[in-house]
Amino acid sequence: MQNVEYYQDTFSEYLQTFTVQKEPVSLYNPINYILNLGGKRLRPVLTLMTAEMFGCEMKKALPAALSIEVFHNFSLVHDDIMDDAPLRRGHETVHEKWDLNTGILSGDAMLILAYQLFENYEPHVFQALAKLFSKTALEVCEGQQYDMDFELMDNVSIPDYLKMIEYKTAVLVGAAMQMGAIVAEVSLEDQQGVYEFGKNLGIAFQLQDDYLDAFGDPKSFGKQVGGDIIENKKTYLYLKALEFSSESDRLQLQHLYGIQPTDASEKIKTVKQFFESTGAAQATKEAIKHYTNIAFMVLEGLNIPKERKDVLRVFGEQLMDREV
Amino acid sequence: MQNVEYYQDTFSEYLQTFTVQKEPVSLYNPINYILNLGGKRLRPVLTLMTAEMFGCEMKKALPAALSIEVFHNFSLVHDDIMDDAPLRRGHETVHEKWDLNTGILSGDAMLILAYQLFENYEPHVFQALAKLFSKTALEVCEGQQYDMDFELMDNVSIPDYLKMIEYKTAVLVGAAMQMGAIVAEVSLEDQQGVYEFGKNLGIAFQLQDDYLDAFGDPKSFGKQVGGDIIENKKTYLYLKALEFSSESDRLQLQHLYGIQPTDASEKIKTVKQFFESTGAAQATKEAIKHYTNIAFMVLEGLNIPKERKDVLRVFGEQLMDREV
Repeated sequence: MQNVEYYQDTFSEYLQTFTVQKEPVSLYNPINYILNLGGKRLRPVLTLMTAEMFGCEMKKALPAALSIEVFHNFSLVHDDIMDDAPLRRGHETVHEKWDLNTGILSGDAMLILAYQLFENYEPHVFQALAKLFSKTALEVCEGQQYDMDFELMDNVSIPDYLKMIEYKTAVLVGAAMQMGAIVAEVSLEDQQGVYEFGKNLGIAFQLQDDYLDAFGDPKSFGKQVGGDIIENKKTYLYLKALEFSSESDRLQLQHLYGIQPTDASEKIKTVKQFFESTGAAQATKEAIKHYTNIAFMVLEGLNIPKERKDVLRVFGEQLMDREV
Repeated sequence: MQNVEYYQDTFSEYLQTFTVQKEPVSLYNPINYILNLGGKRLRPVLTLMTAEMFGCEMKKALPAALSIEVFHNFSLVHDDIMDDAPLRRGHETVHEKWDLNTGILSGDAMLILAYQLFENYEPHVFQALAKLFSKTALEVCEGQQYDMDFELMDNVSIPDYLKMIEYKTAVLVGAAMQMGAIVAEVSLEDQQGVYEFGKNLGIAFQLQDDYLDAFGDPKSFGKQVGGDIIENKKTYLYLKALEFSSESDRLQLQHLYGIQPTDASEKIKTVKQFFESTGAAQATKEAIKHYTNIAFMVLEGLNIPKERKDVLRVFGEQLMDREV
């Protein structure tokens, strides 16, 4: 069994060959820039792992893996415009480094380039990949729209929130894995199996992100702990806390989510106390466990030798073994 | 032979069935809005005409025709943001009626929906359509980027300008027709033939647009005559006038293209005199004739009975028989 770094390195090497050396450079330079800002390359790594798990040569899955990564970066470029974000992975976002128009147009070109990568496959594989890709890409757009809509709403329900993170984040993880299965030309049942594994792991991962944003170890989390609280972001923790609160607690929590004090440390402390006292923190941990368990049960059920699944099981365990 | 209205009506009817009734409405309402603002539907009509010319049932080409129209409207939504345009076909642009984020995200979804329409075809036709579509869509992005780059440049050459309008406008006309040929499953040679016809007609059409903007009949042109001159737009007329000018005339013309007087009538009058006295107007007419002739020669060369080509020949003639 190969370790994660092996897949990451193989992918990074392939990515280097992709650098777009075309005119006009004002269109393609931003694309090369964002694709080379780094990141853990989790999605393409999952495509490669899945293809190999199903007995397919990893090399064959590289264009599909790259398509997923190009799409993911397309969505980052456009989301960063919509969220008015100045930084991405510690560097200027594309619309900051260049301008709004460059961000829009280079993003558009990336979405097209992602489809173009499927041209490396035969017609029936091409169509299967492109169909899954279109369905998933539309869901990611819908997830982003729900996320923006929710910012303006007072009464976001837990099912609505779960649907939002499923669309915005988790379906792309599922699709990344199903693409590995499509390239390996396995049965639709096996394809749907890995898709469900990836999707549920993706939901668990996003819920864990919500949890760690408040309760993570500042040393290992990577982002500012309390960032979601500062920005009044309606995460699973917050929505569960509202659900579990008494009327007076609810009003106090909603008040705290309407202010943005210069020194946020008191606010963060109080909100975290609410998250714990209401039982929201515990409920979030349980939800993470719930979706992780579904993912591993689905993996168990896949009709391939146990040892071949190890690479995905270990990967999933490592991913969910952050400081929860 | 059917007339243009017949194809327009058939397409409009099909478009009605496409109205996207999906959640979130904040994502899909703007898509339905822009697609129903009207327009002449020239591109999808060409797809249908081409398929029928090659002996294919028109109905079969409807999803491909719609894909072209959805893509065209995607590019309008994003271009209108980049050009800061308040109006489109006499109505508010999407980013004006809603906001920037809606314009970006609904546009993204339209690009994906355009690809999804190819799922109505068998794998080998699907792949041929999607390959042509991706190549063309990237070129349209490149054309838009060149157009924006040229605004900041003093020395745009005539070949550069022709390449820009080819990419930004003409390749999509060619692709619309080739898609009709792909759906009709004719030889690659015939596919490339209609593509060249459409591309050259598209270039001629855009040059004619440049010409009519200055010299068209205000009653029939539809847009404000002199609009390009008011906005200092470097059209074929302007670039040719610079090329043909004496040093002193050139300086005066460049000066005029640096100002934006409140009452532009004097400026328009003087610039038009330059366009005529330098021979730029005449040269533009000749270029229009040149590309139109190429288009019709290519059509002549297509290996199908003469009378079947009538629909495209008549359409091309009508299109180029505006007030030149």
